[in-house]
Amino acid sequence: MAGRRKRSSLLFDLFAANQRVRSLVTTAMDGAGLKPDEYAVYSALFEFEPISPTEIAAIVGMPPTTLSHYIRAMRERGHVDERRNPQDSRSRVLTLTVAGRSAHRQANQAFEQAYRRFMEGIADEASVKAALAEVEGAAADGLARLTSDTRARTG
Amino acid sequence: MAGRRKRSSLLFDLFAANQRVRSLVTTAMDGAGLKPDEYAVYSALFEFEPISPTEIAAIVGMPPTTLSHYIRAMRERGHVDERRNPQDSRSRVLTLTVAGRSAHRQANQAFEQAYRRFMEGIADEASVKAALAEVEGAAADGLARLTSDTRARTG
Repeated sequence: MAGRRKRSSLLFDLFAANQRVRSLVTTAMDGAGLKPDEYAVYSALFEFEPISPTEIAAIVGMPPTTLSHYIRAMRERGHVDERRNPQDSRSRVLTLTVAGRSAHRQANQAFEQAYRRFMEGIADEASVKAALAEVEGAAADGLARLTSDTRARTG
Repeated sequence: MAGRRKRSSLLFDLFAANQRVRSLVTTAMDGAGLKPDEYAVYSALFEFEPISPTEIAAIVGMPPTTLSHYIRAMRERGHVDERRNPQDSRSRVLTLTVAGRSAHRQANQAFEQAYRRFMEGIADEASVKAALAEVEGAAADGLARLTSDTRARTG
């Protein structure tokens, strides 16, 4: 199959790598209570709370509207507390509840299974990390330019 | 925000990079007739047809059950032709119909907008490509070991 991929674009390579990681993580987290995407959002809260929805969206790279669906589901499960942002009274900051931390801990054990097995196949973590940062930056800059060009054309 | 990402794991970096690319591609492809995931499947067909569902699943890195949902949707749209595999009569191979090619072409124009802007931010394509191959390989190997260990424990 390797020969079939020679002509692939970087975005196709990213899509395929992500699908493969998704299969690994979804398999490892089956029955752990949180789906991989949900676990990413809980993890951003766990590491950085108290944190605003805008900051979570920036960390996980989701549009704010997408993130708001995750936050709503967490609220319905009683997994998140919200209070006014002491630095900016117009926004709010979120923290995990005791139940939210417990859900994160359970999912984390399953995720670590996937992570450990994944990292066994990574020879040079720093260079992969740098490449992923380059991908993320290129996509963020590209979206900013696409949006400003579209505005210029229609505005 | 960069300081907040220091402790992140490679899988979190991949998740964030992928989300960011998704935002770019989804924005560029809005109204182009195919969603980014669908476009990836159509592209595998476009490049490698005639091709079996198993081969498409391997190329895009999807579990065969996930892929079968995409194929079913393509069939309902009249975008795919199926015939017996001349090399193996128990399986079938797929090709795009004229309508399927046309849908791919339209989506491709929008995708190329996203791709061009993305690539403007990539300094060293070869090293990013190598890193993504390493990620894909590590995930595939990790899943194989996870599955065989689970079987050994329960079997």
